[in-house]
Amino acid sequence: MISVSIVGASGYTGGELLKILRRHPDVRVKHVTTSSSPGKRLEEVHPQLRKDFDLSLESFDAKRLARDTDVAFFALPHGVGSKNIAEFLATGKKVVDLSADFRLRDVKTYEAWYKVKHASPKLLKEAVYGLPELFRPRIPGARLVANPGCYATTTILALAPLLKNGVIDPASIIVDAKSGVSGAGKKLDLMYHFPECAENFQAYAVNKHRHMPEIEQTLKDVSGRTVALTFVPHLVPMTRGILACAYAKLRKKTDVSRIRALFEKEYGGERFIRLLPEGRWPQTKDVSYTNYVDINAAVDERNGRVIVLAALDNLVKGASGQAVQNMNLMFGLDEAAGLV
Amino acid sequence: MISVSIVGASGYTGGELLKILRRHPDVRVKHVTTSSSPGKRLEEVHPQLRKDFDLSLESFDAKRLARDTDVAFFALPHGVGSKNIAEFLATGKKVVDLSADFRLRDVKTYEAWYKVKHASPKLLKEAVYGLPELFRPRIPGARLVANPGCYATTTILALAPLLKNGVIDPASIIVDAKSGVSGAGKKLDLMYHFPECAENFQAYAVNKHRHMPEIEQTLKDVSGRTVALTFVPHLVPMTRGILACAYAKLRKKTDVSRIRALFEKEYGGERFIRLLPEGRWPQTKDVSYTNYVDINAAVDERNGRVIVLAALDNLVKGASGQAVQNMNLMFGLDEAAGLV
Amino acid sequence: MISVSIVGASGYTGGELLKILRRHPDVRVKHVTTSSSPGKRLEEVHPQLRKDFDLSLESFDAKRLARDTDVAFFALPHGVGSKNIAEFLATGKKVVDLSADFRLRDVKTYEAWYKVKHASPKLLKEAVYGLPELFRPRIPGARLVANPGCYATTTILALAPLLKNGVIDPASIIVDAKSGVSGAGKKLDLMYHFPECAENFQAYAVNKHRHMPEIEQTLKDVSGRTVALTFVPHLVPMTRGILACAYAKLRKKTDVSRIRALFEKEYGGERFIRLLPEGRWPQTKDVSYTNYVDINAAVDERNGRVIVLAALDNLVKGASGQAVQNMNLMFGLDEAAGLV
Amino acid sequence: MISVSIVGASGYTGGELLKILRRHPDVRVKHVTTSSSPGKRLEEVHPQLRKDFDLSLESFDAKRLARDTDVAFFALPHGVGSKNIAEFLATGKKVVDLSADFRLRDVKTYEAWYKVKHASPKLLKEAVYGLPELFRPRIPGARLVANPGCYATTTILALAPLLKNGVIDPASIIVDAKSGVSGAGKKLDLMYHFPECAENFQAYAVNKHRHMPEIEQTLKDVSGRTVALTFVPHLVPMTRGILACAYAKLRKKTDVSRIRALFEKEYGGERFIRLLPEGRWPQTKDVSYTNYVDINAAVDERNGRVIVLAALDNLVKGASGQAVQNMNLMFGLDEAAGLV
Repeated sequence: MISVSIVGASGYTGGELLKILRRHPDVRVKHVTTSSSPGKRLEEVHPQLRKDFDLSLESFDAKRLARDTDVAFFALPHGVGSKNIAEFLATGKKVVDLSADFRLRDVKTYEAWYKVKHASPKLLKEAVYGLPELFRPRIPGARLVANPGCYATTTILALAPLLKNGVIDPASIIVDAKSGVSGAGKKLDLMYHFPECAENFQAYAVNKHRHMPEIEQTLKDVSGRTVALTFVPHLVPMTRGILACAYAKLRKKTDVSRIRALFEKEYGGERFIRLLPEGRWPQTKDVSYTNYVDINAAVDERNGRVIVLAALDNLVKGASGQAVQNMNLMFGLDEAAGLV
Repeated sequence: MISVSIVGASGYTGGELLKILRRHPDVRVKHVTTSSSPGKRLEEVHPQLRKDFDLSLESFDAKRLARDTDVAFFALPHGVGSKNIAEFLATGKKVVDLSADFRLRDVKTYEAWYKVKHASPKLLKEAVYGLPELFRPRIPGARLVANPGCYATTTILALAPLLKNGVIDPASIIVDAKSGVSGAGKKLDLMYHFPECAENFQAYAVNKHRHMPEIEQTLKDVSGRTVALTFVPHLVPMTRGILACAYAKLRKKTDVSRIRALFEKEYGGERFIRLLPEGRWPQTKDVSYTNYVDINAAVDERNGRVIVLAALDNLVKGASGQAVQNMNLMFGLDEAAGLV
Repeated sequence: MISVSIVGASGYTGGELLKILRRHPDVRVKHVTTSSSPGKRLEEVHPQLRKDFDLSLESFDAKRLARDTDVAFFALPHGVGSKNIAEFLATGKKVVDLSADFRLRDVKTYEAWYKVKHASPKLLKEAVYGLPELFRPRIPGARLVANPGCYATTTILALAPLLKNGVIDPASIIVDAKSGVSGAGKKLDLMYHFPECAENFQAYAVNKHRHMPEIEQTLKDVSGRTVALTFVPHLVPMTRGILACAYAKLRKKTDVSRIRALFEKEYGGERFIRLLPEGRWPQTKDVSYTNYVDINAAVDERNGRVIVLAALDNLVKGASGQAVQNMNLMFGLDEAAGLV
Repeated sequence: MISVSIVGASGYTGGELLKILRRHPDVRVKHVTTSSSPGKRLEEVHPQLRKDFDLSLESFDAKRLARDTDVAFFALPHGVGSKNIAEFLATGKKVVDLSADFRLRDVKTYEAWYKVKHASPKLLKEAVYGLPELFRPRIPGARLVANPGCYATTTILALAPLLKNGVIDPASIIVDAKSGVSGAGKKLDLMYHFPECAENFQAYAVNKHRHMPEIEQTLKDVSGRTVALTFVPHLVPMTRGILACAYAKLRKKTDVSRIRALFEKEYGGERFIRLLPEGRWPQTKDVSYTNYVDINAAVDERNGRVIVLAALDNLVKGASGQAVQNMNLMFGLDEAAGLV
């Protein structure tokens, strides 16, 4: 039995972690913390969890948590938790961080994109980027796993096989991505007010989204090639799900069966990646409430381009499900435990 | 007063025409036809219109209609109405056709993409493509106006200024388009069944959508350049609206203010095109139930690419509103009559 | 030409007023005011209205407005505008108030339910309750019209014919009402955050909603009978629309055709009430973006109960459309001007 | 390990059963049948289940199924499966039927409401109505469990404690119920076409819904009192969830704490019923994807009425979750196995 705490349990990724962990056969949730409403019962903040847990929200205290916690999930906004993470790691326990704080290795890039000073830059070198399908061997030994962003997971998994195998021009990549509204979290903003958001579709942060450097860093890691993305995210009037459509120039004439074979080679053994049959396109509903990523590709032969579509649930494989997958690997459990 | 009939009044574009025309100061609706339920009262099929019209649905009869009709809107699926259109034109009256039947000048291209034999190919040469912002001078004299498709209107208006002015490489264009569900019409299909469609986002007809040849033909017409598009449409869980995001390689270093100036030059005097201020991105809600197209552009300087976003209401500017705009031009009325 | 100003133009009912008035043939909008963002262009707050008006938001100033305004619509939250209304009326001009401030004649009831002190209680006696279908004769001479609430309009119109004609027991009335989210306005609240609100249905303010005294006062006015309602409102995951289902005990055996005849008698000549044919139930989509109220009734013969269903668009007939209908009456215009 | 087959696996309740059973620790799914597409892989019909099962759809064959099945779930429309159920029971195996065929004990009532002849009326007497919270003792010994309807489960659980304890007048009950669209199943109909259904709210089958006799029969069973309901169902623009609001006359002055005490007494020990704290109203999102029923009550003291609100997920506690709960009881498993 692994003892788990969730730091920042009142938001959407914290709630989703609890929904997953209530079914995990090897986990006991010990503490749930919040800065905004310590003292409240968990079900006051997450009424869906009433009767599933008997927990009250606490303030964060590294030592108190460490006493009976093996691993803490930090589900805080970026820039808020990194000092606490350092403290908690100092007790000898492990961390999966769902924020962006430990995903970029270069502190200047982080500070430029996230507009905050990093409180624990020394940990950047040690943090392992927790995308199991690409970096599985590094995860079991990690003290600190940086759980990837939702757009990043989708985009990286869609493009990695093509870049690794050198079939596309790294300077030609365009990603048009679409996300459900829960990706923006629980913080109120007119943009996410129901009457503004329902029956509406819009682009935002056009070619300026914070997941871009994370995607570029990781695609370079897996392929050795420098990638400069054009990236346009959109907001879809639904709660969950991301679909990304990636376009790239093929370096030479290639048909779709060769592309499919590459994906099969890279992901054929993966529990959570489903390469769809020809003609069946990924849709967010098919992966909703699961840890799956659905992927398929087409070739535009007139233009020598490949089109890759990938879908996942931003709260599961794009956040809390992947965090549990990482925890499973860190503790030598079945990678899929709690996730099916 | 212009007397108008609507052939195929029971679908969504027929209903939308009636919603617009009930406010049009210079129009009287004389006949509404249907093949599926002649004899029914209009409000049985369009309960929203109860008390707004006193009309019953009739079967189509070119001569009967022509007796007291100046112009007929044909709002039928492709391949169904072209014979009737020829008959009706033979009476000396005018037609605005909302189907795809007279948009493509080349009958072979039409038959290859739409998988039906064209019943009136002789009219193809005469038909005028009714996109007023680009072909306004041709419309007043037309007997037969082919009303553009919804994706086509959005995409063409987004790209025409750039192609006409030679600033982008015509071989580099990628369009990632998103449509609300009413674009698929009233025909039942599991894909549009509420529980499948709500809380879902998906691609479909990946690089195989029937609006592609229409877009390519028209962009060539306005620019003199051959265009081969990569085009991926998506289905958004909302009823109305299209947003297209077009990506293209700039032929030389160009900043966003130069791009904005081009759009301003081409569209500055247009009643129904709104070039948004910098940093404000088009969203479908802003154009919902209006005949506007909202447009804005960004430049990805790292990659020398331009990104153009355009939004419209697929049932208004993408169909019935544009049809009324064409009718206004054909009869010398204020182009915006009934549309504000 | 009537000159109009809108006080509190940045919210949803203010925006809806502008959408209606841009089509009104006899109206010119002179001023739009706001307390939160004076100086901004109107289209910054309502991007849907870009190009439809050339207006900037101003601060409220009774004298400045009065100089070129015949009537001002006050579209403010309750408790905020009543002092300004008094000031504005003092200039000799007219007011339609969309807030709750002048709907209840009894200041104590107002203050008990709305938890604010009334700033202009002297005007309560003079204010006319602007429900044209029931109080039309009083409206043309009014200086101050209190525009009814959205739930109130729906419920009162559903029940008035039955109470006036004495066919139901006034002590037996239960109203189960459902509203779209725009009814709650533009103010942010977790309850209206898209991920909380979409794919959700809930009751709120169970038997404690502020429209209850307004409904009871008015039903007594039209019938002479004291009414004590059971009233449960619900939130529907959609933007616009109210549907109310009212249940009451019949005082004697009555069949549905007699009930229909009563509605026909009371409302048969009304431009904006549509009594639906038997078996066709009101739905919010049928009245969306219109000033109509759709009504139908059933009789539960086993239990001697009548069931009345009524639907309207909360932003139109439930707010801004009705306000324009009132203005039309106040100025001797066609009651439907701008509303079709 | 229990071996399970699903007859009629291609619909929504069949798919939901599979989603639940993939997590059930004691169950193996052996066969999935369909009449419409035998031979297809399961994931062609339920793409969400890709990689979770390795199954192909078969035609129904009682003997073949019985060879390696302990219990079959019949998830067919009413009137279709009862002959097959009789055949399957004849092999000595057990059945949970999710249709309406075995819920009503009186064959004439069944045939009057469902407009079909019953193929196996002899089994009606034997079938056990599978509402565990009220009839738990009868379920373990049953061969044939009739799984309750979704509206029925919600309404019965909301009213049973009050009727059993004699606090309400059985002649005074009104139920205003609201359901998500998946309740209508996968069959196409214009009413459930996305553009008709989204942004819409409507009543249907006003006081004529087929769950009425099932509710009345069961409430009489638990209370000994004849109940004649007024029942109005509504369609909510969401996929999952039912909320019912029940109104009844209190037989004597009773405050809300006494009502709460009754619910606590009847349901306090129930794993899947959550009596909410005062002031917190049930909402469908809180029970979505769970087997919970959330309940709360208010008292309208002016009118001497009680208002009970209950919410559940129509596909889980209203169908497939309850079916698994019944199976657990039939086989002596933990009642909550697979359901948390």
